[in-house]
Amino acid sequence: MYAGIEAGGTKFNCIIAEDPQNILVETRIPTTTPHETLTRVVNFFLEESLSRKITLKSLGIGSFGPLDLNKRSTHYGCITSTPKTAWQNVNIVKELEDRLHLPIDLDTDVNAAALGELYWGAGQGLQNILYLTIGTGIGGGAIIARKPYHGLLHPEMGHIFLAQPFSEDDFKGVCPYHSHCFEGLASGPALKARWGRDAALLEPHHPAWDQETFYIAQALSTYINVLSPEIIILGGGVMQQTHLFPLIRIKVIELLNGYLQIPAILENIDQYIVPPGLGTRSGVLGAIALARSLVD
Amino acid sequence: MYAGIEAGGTKFNCIIAEDPQNILVETRIPTTTPHETLTRVVNFFLEESLSRKITLKSLGIGSFGPLDLNKRSTHYGCITSTPKTAWQNVNIVKELEDRLHLPIDLDTDVNAAALGELYWGAGQGLQNILYLTIGTGIGGGAIIARKPYHGLLHPEMGHIFLAQPFSEDDFKGVCPYHSHCFEGLASGPALKARWGRDAALLEPHHPAWDQETFYIAQALSTYINVLSPEIIILGGGVMQQTHLFPLIRIKVIELLNGYLQIPAILENIDQYIVPPGLGTRSGVLGAIALARSLVD
Repeated sequence: MYAGIEAGGTKFNCIIAEDPQNILVETRIPTTTPHETLTRVVNFFLEESLSRKITLKSLGIGSFGPLDLNKRSTHYGCITSTPKTAWQNVNIVKELEDRLHLPIDLDTDVNAAALGELYWGAGQGLQNILYLTIGTGIGGGAIIARKPYHGLLHPEMGHIFLAQPFSEDDFKGVCPYHSHCFEGLASGPALKARWGRDAALLEPHHPAWDQETFYIAQALSTYINVLSPEIIILGGGVMQQTHLFPLIRIKVIELLNGYLQIPAILENIDQYIVPPGLGTRSGVLGAIALARSLVD
Repeated sequence: MYAGIEAGGTKFNCIIAEDPQNILVETRIPTTTPHETLTRVVNFFLEESLSRKITLKSLGIGSFGPLDLNKRSTHYGCITSTPKTAWQNVNIVKELEDRLHLPIDLDTDVNAAALGELYWGAGQGLQNILYLTIGTGIGGGAIIARKPYHGLLHPEMGHIFLAQPFSEDDFKGVCPYHSHCFEGLASGPALKARWGRDAALLEPHHPAWDQETFYIAQALSTYINVLSPEIIILGGGVMQQTHLFPLIRIKVIELLNGYLQIPAILENIDQYIVPPGLGTRSGVLGAIALARSLVD
């Protein structure tokens, strides 16, 4: 059995499992202070493994960030410049290693979700996939040659700049760092700031969705031109609005405008831009995939 | 000795070399019809290797595209949807294999250039690098884990969409496929269409350069957020305007606005956004690097 944590800004989803068919136990711990949250996480894993008489092989963590994932850095394992100030510079790997005595692998929440989808979801059998979450924030995880990709730091795909659909539109977005970035313009909080209601309360024919479609399709066409993924998996709260999928697919084809002669996109867009195969569990099962890739 | 071809829309640069210090011979063949061009290319390699009594081990080709680089595809080796209609569906690998009887590796011109920079230029010792050419066209090549990256097709980085620096600006760019894409807005022909003169003839204080800086910096910040490269190498005709480098560096820092706490960018931008270590020869020497990686 393996331990997994999907560490988010509002809650830590913890799981003990082998794969999606063999889940022993799951829990949700609210994100409060680092000390309180991590203590409850540790207690969950210790108590569950003790009472069920199981040995945990390893722990995978998919976390909010930005993170220091460079194993040669002295800050490896730290959450770095997050707006959640209490969590700045918290070394989540060290804190948990010291108390759980398990091999730990840390990655971004979206890289973990992408790995979960590669192992057991929509990305099975592929080499290079993109998982995007569009919800409270926007982030992207890339699997390249079947491995989570980092580069110098790790991708921060929600912060690419986008053009406005109408030149008279002067909404600059809600990102405190960037004017006109994807997250600032198209995340759940952006929809709320612009239309005064939660995304879930906007009816399917509300003009918000045309604009949202334009932003998402524009971002996807950028990812296609830069990363050329074999599939794009869209998760997160905003994508629970499943009527967006067909709108986004049509708009992506329209924006690419025939420049890329790729049958997988032009003839099979329904299988190219898809919801997660693991539903809302890509992240937490991705943490199990991380744990497994560390020791198997 | 290895053979290399940098296949471009206006000329084919051909080279016989071992590395940058050991170049035996180079030539330029104008790009005309596929038959005429490839015949001259074949004759060059046959005559030179015969008269100099050398054996060529392999041939690397960095070509304009889009290309079919999928070795399992029946169209592997083809130039596909290029606007140069005479070259559409020409199988450059097969044509040259049949006549030269050498192992051949084909990649995009920019991936070849990126590999050349990795082997012998600004990217030596790194794992994940980005090479961008800004000239007649705009394209990007990515090396990931020391290998040229393809994905589903291959990146077409020049075709990402950009925001306009001023909302009243109604120039849509010169790309026949996309309104407001990077290549359409910032390539050499875009500068010429907008300002009525070749980029080389625009004085350093011409307002064109402020706008060009904004476009390039915006694109680089997108690549940083999506690919997180360890270095960005800028080549191509427009980047011969070396006064652009400091302007672009300042603007990238300004656009990222402190969100990514990466010392390699924040404290070392002069070593992060750089001209090619191989000058204007990244592409043709990159073809040699491709040839070597095939047989070494």
